[in-house]
Amino acid sequence: MITSQHAMPPAGLVDFDAVEKVLHRAAEAAASVTLRLFRTPLAVENKWQAGFDPVTEADKEAEIAIRQIIEESFPDHAIVGEEWANKETGSPFTWIIDPIDGTRAFISGVPVWGTLIGLIHQGRALAGLMAQPFTGETFWSLPGRARYRHGGDMAPLGTSAVTELAHAKLTTTSPDLFLGANREGPWRAISPRVLQVRYGLDCYGYCLLAMGQIDLVVEAGLKDVDIAPLIPIIENAGGVITTWAGGPAEAGGNCVAAATPDLHAAALAVLAGG
Amino acid sequence: MITSQHAMPPAGLVDFDAVEKVLHRAAEAAASVTLRLFRTPLAVENKWQAGFDPVTEADKEAEIAIRQIIEESFPDHAIVGEEWANKETGSPFTWIIDPIDGTRAFISGVPVWGTLIGLIHQGRALAGLMAQPFTGETFWSLPGRARYRHGGDMAPLGTSAVTELAHAKLTTTSPDLFLGANREGPWRAISPRVLQVRYGLDCYGYCLLAMGQIDLVVEAGLKDVDIAPLIPIIENAGGVITTWAGGPAEAGGNCVAAATPDLHAAALAVLAGG
Repeated sequence: MITSQHAMPPAGLVDFDAVEKVLHRAAEAAASVTLRLFRTPLAVENKWQAGFDPVTEADKEAEIAIRQIIEESFPDHAIVGEEWANKETGSPFTWIIDPIDGTRAFISGVPVWGTLIGLIHQGRALAGLMAQPFTGETFWSLPGRARYRHGGDMAPLGTSAVTELAHAKLTTTSPDLFLGANREGPWRAISPRVLQVRYGLDCYGYCLLAMGQIDLVVEAGLKDVDIAPLIPIIENAGGVITTWAGGPAEAGGNCVAAATPDLHAAALAVLAGG
Repeated sequence: MITSQHAMPPAGLVDFDAVEKVLHRAAEAAASVTLRLFRTPLAVENKWQAGFDPVTEADKEAEIAIRQIIEESFPDHAIVGEEWANKETGSPFTWIIDPIDGTRAFISGVPVWGTLIGLIHQGRALAGLMAQPFTGETFWSLPGRARYRHGGDMAPLGTSAVTELAHAKLTTTSPDLFLGANREGPWRAISPRVLQVRYGLDCYGYCLLAMGQIDLVVEAGLKDVDIAPLIPIIENAGGVITTWAGGPAEAGGNCVAAATPDLHAAALAVLAGG
């Protein structure tokens, strides 16, 4: 089993203060787009014919705003975003963007979607931010720090001390994530063992884990942009996040985040046997 | 099928301006208790032995604060609350209180719980309020008005124009509501017919319906305090709410709220046949 640990990059490789500033400035630029379109009927491109694809104008415009801020400060870094083509530069640094994680929450008016912005170094998540502009909350992390801001209040993030499944508050975005091959068994194995299951939180669930309010997040079929920016927030708050197989979560897939190493090990054992 | 319609009580029977003031003052008194305890580890009475009963100090204290405000202005009215004994007076007016609807959301740090306060006249919901103090949102209604306030911004509430299940955004608090006799069939019948299903919203889902963001709410096993204060908000915003059998929803049970009468009829037909 691989447990995730941040390797600190060599000093001078990147200016962390500049990274922190870019994370916040980019999130603010995105917020001016997303908040303008949140809860407006015009925000949704309805595609009845092709099923339901809740891609919004907000998603596309917000990613452009984020990319501009990043490119001004780090023109040589690569960029991966959900809505637009990747920018390849050969740099060991890649910014990874999900302008609106939880587009279904967004189009339903539920303020648990978030703007995710992360920085990856040689495949490992190094820094990340989640912003929920309607509630005015920001969760972010760089090596050695994991922080929360709500309006003018700031606090360090820290996970709970829960070590047993029976005491764990679990969340997952939807039970429908577990329909399909090799997912239903593990979900049926773990969900009855926990204290309570809560649905519908997208990225907000991982941030509440980093805050000590949720103890366990189990999800399946994630994309890299859904999870990579959240990894530093979880890990630097004291949590552990890996795939169900115990590997690095940067590429997404089936992921499990836990408040403590013991709770993570207990969850992994059940998911592997499920 | 009975569709709910508010019968306007005889003029002079109750002072609606006074009712509106009491709704808001009581919600503010509750907020000072709930916000102080929201996201603090001390908020939860953990009851491992007896399973998980997420009754919080906030619930109990907030109801006391709400009752005080009501009793000052309407000493002869009856009161029904979730946490304390009913106050019986023989009055045709009953206030109905759920200090924290969504205690599981509350103890998980998710700001979709709400303080519900309603006024019933001879069995029919007459006025109601839902407040989410962390996001700073209040949804309320009296005869002829349904309103929303977010911080300093105020707007009328109005449901969407969606009439077909295939175009409807549906929400329910948890799929686990439908485990049990006569619930699983109807849920399995309706959930695949809608555009999307969203979980985890408690009272916030009904308020988003009144706002036009959600089109349909289907829930089961509700208590009277969970739903009665929301009925005027839904109806005066243009929506319809009844039990699955088409009867009044004031007593709770299995309930369905829809943005339009056509959508409500379509949902009722599926739920009855499921």
